[in-house]
Amino acid sequence: MGDRLTIALDAMGGDDAPGIVIDGANLALSRFPQVDFLLFGPEPQLAPLVERAARLKDRVRIVHTDMVVSADAKPSAALRNSRQSSMRLAINAVQEGQAVGVVSAGNTGALMAMAKLVLRTLPGIDRPAICSFFPTLRGESVMLDLGANIDCDADNLFQFAVMGQVFSRTVLGLARPSLGLLNVGAEDQKGHEALRIASQRLRDADLPIEFHGFIEGNDIATGTVDVIVTDGFTGNVALKTAEGTVKLFTQSLRAAFHSSPLASIGYFFARPALRKLRRRLDPRRYNGAVFLGLNGIAVKSHGGADALGFANAIGVAVDMALHGFLDTVREEFETLHPSLGLAPAAAVAP
Amino acid sequence: MGDRLTIALDAMGGDDAPGIVIDGANLALSRFPQVDFLLFGPEPQLAPLVERAARLKDRVRIVHTDMVVSADAKPSAALRNSRQSSMRLAINAVQEGQAVGVVSAGNTGALMAMAKLVLRTLPGIDRPAICSFFPTLRGESVMLDLGANIDCDADNLFQFAVMGQVFSRTVLGLARPSLGLLNVGAEDQKGHEALRIASQRLRDADLPIEFHGFIEGNDIATGTVDVIVTDGFTGNVALKTAEGTVKLFTQSLRAAFHSSPLASIGYFFARPALRKLRRRLDPRRYNGAVFLGLNGIAVKSHGGADALGFANAIGVAVDMALHGFLDTVREEFETLHPSLGLAPAAAVAP
Repeated sequence: MGDRLTIALDAMGGDDAPGIVIDGANLALSRFPQVDFLLFGPEPQLAPLVERAARLKDRVRIVHTDMVVSADAKPSAALRNSRQSSMRLAINAVQEGQAVGVVSAGNTGALMAMAKLVLRTLPGIDRPAICSFFPTLRGESVMLDLGANIDCDADNLFQFAVMGQVFSRTVLGLARPSLGLLNVGAEDQKGHEALRIASQRLRDADLPIEFHGFIEGNDIATGTVDVIVTDGFTGNVALKTAEGTVKLFTQSLRAAFHSSPLASIGYFFARPALRKLRRRLDPRRYNGAVFLGLNGIAVKSHGGADALGFANAIGVAVDMALHGFLDTVREEFETLHPSLGLAPAAAVAP
Repeated sequence: MGDRLTIALDAMGGDDAPGIVIDGANLALSRFPQVDFLLFGPEPQLAPLVERAARLKDRVRIVHTDMVVSADAKPSAALRNSRQSSMRLAINAVQEGQAVGVVSAGNTGALMAMAKLVLRTLPGIDRPAICSFFPTLRGESVMLDLGANIDCDADNLFQFAVMGQVFSRTVLGLARPSLGLLNVGAEDQKGHEALRIASQRLRDADLPIEFHGFIEGNDIATGTVDVIVTDGFTGNVALKTAEGTVKLFTQSLRAAFHSSPLASIGYFFARPALRKLRRRLDPRRYNGAVFLGLNGIAVKSHGGADALGFANAIGVAVDMALHGFLDTVREEFETLHPSLGLAPAAAVAP
């Protein structure tokens, strides 16, 4: 087991913490036997739960703390007052090199604020972005930013694009991902100025991608591109709109199957196929939003995730570590420095 | 038939024009027998089609023109060069009082530019918005702006809200619609400044609505509010994202039903119920995007609409005319003038 690695877990984040965190870690071990865990939270509460988790109990070290960041804490308050919280200590463990990544289902704003402060952004990146993947007609795509940055300029969008394509290449294994900027039309003159400038830069930059130019909202689920880049406001609205639409469709479908005896018979026969469909679109499979752009791996699980969902969020962190996401991003930004205007002396004069 | 009214139709807009325009008008007559049509386009092409449309032939007057605005014409070019086009003449008919509204399935940008120039905005409204309704878990809601204005300030959003609630009250018949501003979180401090200012103004204004504050993307399909207000960039992305998601779901469902013999049997039994579901979510039912804020009714049909879709777009225009949308908007803005800062002398000093 040469590739052992350690993930830090905030045991107290999420609606059903710490149960789903411990069960999720236990589940994740069956897919990633090479992982050890640091578990941050109140030892008296955690120890008996860990004891019951067959695979996990020998692979985890509990680091005791009683302090928890509440779900409704403001990020600024959490930064000031929660230095001994399970969330903060888990992030610190990454910064101190005790873990390669941190996973939390806690307060998103607090997690982002703490992760930015403690881990800091990678060279060449002004602001981290939230990135996640989701199902499409063609397979799966990744989108960023999903809500970390309400306003984004062309530099931000360009940097998100670089990070997004590295994520797609390293974690999803695509050799040359296609990438598009989310806009209200495909034509060059459409949308905000920041989008038009970022588009020109992406055309000029020498990235290992197929740059698709602008895409529209319907291209997200169609899977027109592998990587979708947008500002955090638009990305957040688009993601939640898609989630809401899936819910509308699922509930309407359920109602249709219960609307008549014949339909119920139909449901009986179609059930295995429908179960497969539900599995494919299961949001738990796509749980795990990544904070890209930090000196360390930080993954946010949905607050309402169950153990399977939390295990998937752990899986994203492990995949990033195993496939060298951080090193690849660092290398790409070193190569790109001149076009970013960061201009290390050596790179400017050939 | 005291309530007769005339609708102007751009016979040449849309992928399948003029066929779907004429068939759509013929269909619309069965729901609205009190409507007459002015049909703008090349008489030699239109006359034989009209002749075959049983109901329509005695209820339409063809106004001949050979000029058509192409689907890819830039709005500015269409404004300059297409003054004799079927689209422009149909809009002119509204301005001249020959018709109460215009319906076109043609080039959206050109239609908006021409409608703004010819009809002008209502007093108190700086910019028109595109508004449409769509299915939700609770029934149907309306959303605006869907793409007319890429950047919106607090004034624009406030004005959209006023227009949207009048639309909901007059066309959908809601006594006191609920209304929300689309944002990335429900908390007061979330999102762009324009949203926060608009929210405060809506709280202070005396409108016949339940103001719900901020809503999120998932609230759109849930039907949390009757009227959703957003800028044109976000609204356009959200609408198209929802459309794409429905397509993903529909196609995945179809694939699931064809994935095994058992599933096909299930489909056979469930078919009537599924057909009902498909009808409920049928985009043709929700065809007809309204340009709100102009001195006249202008409805844009989807370019790919069929006759049924086009008939529904006509229905929206007729409903707006029958229920006095324009008069109600004018009255509301007269009442609101002081808080809008337009300040007619009489309204300022009580």
